[in-house]
Amino acid sequence: MSHAPAETLSRRHQSLRAACRAHSVDALIVTSLPNILYLTNFSGSAAIVLLMPGRLFFITDFRYVTAIESVRDTAVGCPGLELVVVDTSYDAALVSLLRSMASARVGFEAAHLTVARHSWLTSTLGAADAAPELLPTEGLVERLRAVKDDYELKTIRTAAEMLSQIVPGAIREARRGRSEREVALSIDWLMRSAGFERSAFETIVAAGPNGALPHARPSGRKLTESDLVVLDFGGVYDSYCVDLTRTVSVGPADSRGREVYAAVRAAHDRAIQTVAPGQSRFAIDAAARNELAARGLADAFGHGTGHGLGIEVHEAPRISRRRDGIDADDDPVAPGMVFTIEPGAYLPEWGGVRIEDDVVVTETGVEVLTTATTELIEL
Amino acid sequence: MSHAPAETLSRRHQSLRAACRAHSVDALIVTSLPNILYLTNFSGSAAIVLLMPGRLFFITDFRYVTAIESVRDTAVGCPGLELVVVDTSYDAALVSLLRSMASARVGFEAAHLTVARHSWLTSTLGAADAAPELLPTEGLVERLRAVKDDYELKTIRTAAEMLSQIVPGAIREARRGRSEREVALSIDWLMRSAGFERSAFETIVAAGPNGALPHARPSGRKLTESDLVVLDFGGVYDSYCVDLTRTVSVGPADSRGREVYAAVRAAHDRAIQTVAPGQSRFAIDAAARNELAARGLADAFGHGTGHGLGIEVHEAPRISRRRDGIDADDDPVAPGMVFTIEPGAYLPEWGGVRIEDDVVVTETGVEVLTTATTELIEL
Repeated sequence: MSHAPAETLSRRHQSLRAACRAHSVDALIVTSLPNILYLTNFSGSAAIVLLMPGRLFFITDFRYVTAIESVRDTAVGCPGLELVVVDTSYDAALVSLLRSMASARVGFEAAHLTVARHSWLTSTLGAADAAPELLPTEGLVERLRAVKDDYELKTIRTAAEMLSQIVPGAIREARRGRSEREVALSIDWLMRSAGFERSAFETIVAAGPNGALPHARPSGRKLTESDLVVLDFGGVYDSYCVDLTRTVSVGPADSRGREVYAAVRAAHDRAIQTVAPGQSRFAIDAAARNELAARGLADAFGHGTGHGLGIEVHEAPRISRRRDGIDADDDPVAPGMVFTIEPGAYLPEWGGVRIEDDVVVTETGVEVLTTATTELIEL
Repeated sequence: MSHAPAETLSRRHQSLRAACRAHSVDALIVTSLPNILYLTNFSGSAAIVLLMPGRLFFITDFRYVTAIESVRDTAVGCPGLELVVVDTSYDAALVSLLRSMASARVGFEAAHLTVARHSWLTSTLGAADAAPELLPTEGLVERLRAVKDDYELKTIRTAAEMLSQIVPGAIREARRGRSEREVALSIDWLMRSAGFERSAFETIVAAGPNGALPHARPSGRKLTESDLVVLDFGGVYDSYCVDLTRTVSVGPADSRGREVYAAVRAAHDRAIQTVAPGQSRFAIDAAARNELAARGLADAFGHGTGHGLGIEVHEAPRISRRRDGIDADDDPVAPGMVFTIEPGAYLPEWGGVRIEDDVVVTETGVEVLTTATTELIEL
């Protein structure tokens, strides 16, 4: 497994310190594990980072100490990491560090820290004059993560190519008479055998009417002649997620099947054509949505057109409708952003179609990272 | 996949309503997905439950509506569920419901709701006289979940037996010359083939010195003569987690290996013997810890002796040392609690040993749910 080089981590620390200055905080408590992985290469299940000018404290427990020590001062060790080993609890260790930061303005991640932990931290720190002040911040690390750096793009490009290579095998697994669950298991095996660490989410194999459930779980239903089958799978490679969906027909599709498939494919293509630096996220979504609406499928597409991909399988940017009162800003997409384009049409009792690829915004437009054909395949 | 019967869900709702009354809240906002699964059988990725006397609102989005509708009024449908479909956002839908609850005292899950969501909810609800008051609660659903009901015990018993049956196959996969990663993949395949929905966590195969990392990730290291190999794997079956560890020797173990193995096995056995209704969690941990200390391995065992198992792979009760200033109460264990017993010894550069079984507290003592031998196996 490869990791971000130390100099890449250094650049991320610098960018985050600049973001802290811009938000007038002297230090940032990072409690989100994906954010911690981004900043330190640590992929364990428990840690806290406290970043301040010139220093980076890393709090973890016994289980991870040997692993941390073994990469220290290597090419993928986290630069400047000062290890703090938990004695009684993570938050108690954090408070010990904070106590020495008299009067500092310390940001925390409001979208990740729970009310219970926040209450405990503030009450334990107390209201003494010299106690540091805890201030909510939102998305400081996530905004950096939304624009992938060279290391990340290289990793995701490799992962997307690996996933694309699996598609023919995955389609071959979708045979008449096999259950959705058996097909899902075979796809997971293909991904792991290809070198993915794990599935990025529970693989979806949804046949016939089950295809009408966008998040169907594989069942014992056996694939049957004239089923449309949604195959949605993704893998994690060197900590980065890729995600792909194809819909295939068991035997020749009927005219309704072809029509819905063509509509979703047109929506998929149109949305991808719309992607360019500076483009509105909502406009990309609307491109897919309008294409489906023009073909009478407005109500059949209830989810967003895409989601960012990276350390998490759902991250920024969100390619979706503008939500009243929530999406104040129309953050345009920027070069280096990686996300899915995955319109679908879901018709209760009939079934569904979804086609999903992963794209990266380039300086001049868009590059589709997943390369499998989107033609309707009839098994 | 089977689900809790509707009458079981009803009983859980009644117990939770009683807990709400005891904590003087008129209603409870449930945002933890494992808690929502426990209350409703919903296993999707997004929902909010608002429980109040006589009513249960279930907020979800387009992706899950068809699935919810299809189980309504069946034997595993959630009794009394009133479906609310998200329009702009989950929290906006929640606020719409809360607005009609003038002056109510509404609990939220402080250990799950983030500071950001809490701030948005309180500011959106506003400070009008009639606005409901949001009050932090902790562990109301988790305390119910810690004591398994009959449906859960039956499910976990089946799952533990399935996992035990895999052990001989898993050990056969640990062959000289195969990499940790290959062995882990084979174990995952065995679990899925046996009927587990997925791995409960990333399978650990840690050979030789890697065994000194309690949470090692499988690497390309090939299993070598005289390696001790820690195999730690678990599966999810009908939404419930089971978890098991065995340590095997590639070829005959040397005297140090046998000695450490015997110490860990003694600690494992002693801890299990200590389990009984009313027993202190800390006493169970101490039983394992003292056994290791008596054999000179006090510093080699840095994690807790066990963790609860259920919908989550780590849940209450926590079988560990008492932490100063944090563990005020010595909640004794009670009949129906299910947890792991998994002492280990980790010696940097040398390697490690861990032996883990799943147990349930009975009315009179303890029952070990996983049944594979704990004798040292030399491959």
